[in-house]
Amino acid sequence: MKNNCFNIEDYLHRVKSFHGHVAPGVVIGGFMVHLARTQIPEGVLFDAISETPACVPDAVQMLTPCTIGNGWLKIINLGRFALSLYDKHHGNGFRVFLDPVKLEKWPEIMAWFFKLKSKKEQSHEEILSQIKKAGVEICGVCPVQIKPDLLKKRDKGKIAVCPSCAEAYPLRDGNMCLACQGSSPYLIPIYTEGNAHEVKFI
Amino acid sequence: MKNNCFNIEDYLHRVKSFHGHVAPGVVIGGFMVHLARTQIPEGVLFDAISETPACVPDAVQMLTPCTIGNGWLKIINLGRFALSLYDKHHGNGFRVFLDPVKLEKWPEIMAWFFKLKSKKEQSHEEILSQIKKAGVEICGVCPVQIKPDLLKKRDKGKIAVCPSCAEAYPLRDGNMCLACQGSSPYLIPIYTEGNAHEVKFI
Repeated sequence: MKNNCFNIEDYLHRVKSFHGHVAPGVVIGGFMVHLARTQIPEGVLFDAISETPACVPDAVQMLTPCTIGNGWLKIINLGRFALSLYDKHHGNGFRVFLDPVKLEKWPEIMAWFFKLKSKKEQSHEEILSQIKKAGVEICGVCPVQIKPDLLKKRDKGKIAVCPSCAEAYPLRDGNMCLACQGSSPYLIPIYTEGNAHEVKFI
Repeated sequence: MKNNCFNIEDYLHRVKSFHGHVAPGVVIGGFMVHLARTQIPEGVLFDAISETPACVPDAVQMLTPCTIGNGWLKIINLGRFALSLYDKHHGNGFRVFLDPVKLEKWPEIMAWFFKLKSKKEQSHEEILSQIKKAGVEICGVCPVQIKPDLLKKRDKGKIAVCPSCAEAYPLRDGNMCLACQGSSPYLIPIYTEGNAHEVKFI
């Protein structure tokens, strides 16, 4: 994507394929990423922060080299519909946000965003139509400086084998892995003491 | 992708495009996702958990309908190189993990995974070659049941406008948004009391 052009129809196809459906939030997110990119000088390697886990991260992942899995996109859930792109070495960049004041001109987007109508009362077509017309008009942008701690490269440190589940984990997490310390998302225990391997390796 | 075939060369092209480089973790992640999918009956709508933010989430996002932004992929950072795919309504599914015992046959993967060699001493080609030969052989798989709390649909609840930054946020977060409560990742204040709009809207 060139900095100064954003092909919305091409983007909508990609949204359908990657995100699964053309959700209003991902479409607005596309315009937001576009706006942020226009602020970053060509050639600057940038990282991204999404201030919400909803929709915005997928726009970032589709339109920039930053993904969750490569670590260049971080989600810091502040509940705000906003994102930042910033120089990955120096932390200076731009934050783009959906501006409630600017939404007043766009009642369907407003009703969707603030849940002023039930899902049944909302018209997906009308919301999308207003989003496409509004484009970056409903966004605000401002320069930001990222806190130095967030610029540090993540490093798992030493890797050990958990004495409980026999899997690799970062030693800094403690004497056993976080799952075996009680943070497992699973109801049924995967491991039984003494014969872990018999239970685990199917 | 059909459940019973996994075109590794096609996948490697997609990894380069989406993840930016052919990282060993994303390639192994591809085999892991493939293995998990073969366990899920056709037609079952599934969600995903990645137990690490590194690499694995990108494999899930490339090879399944689950993305971070659509909420079907969750990252629960337990520091383990593992993922689960599970029935999104009932929570039953399968967990796939990289098995340290099985790595003993593959010294280059082992050295990379446990950081037994410095980056300089590692051969990217050799690691990738062993990963491609090993395929799903280095993985373990077992059935899991997800805790009921994790099956609930996320709902932001009522949306309010933050009196401090004038942006929308979930009211359940408190009297102001989490960023204005002190969790902002930005060094330079974006807002100054009294003339927020002047500062924010460039």
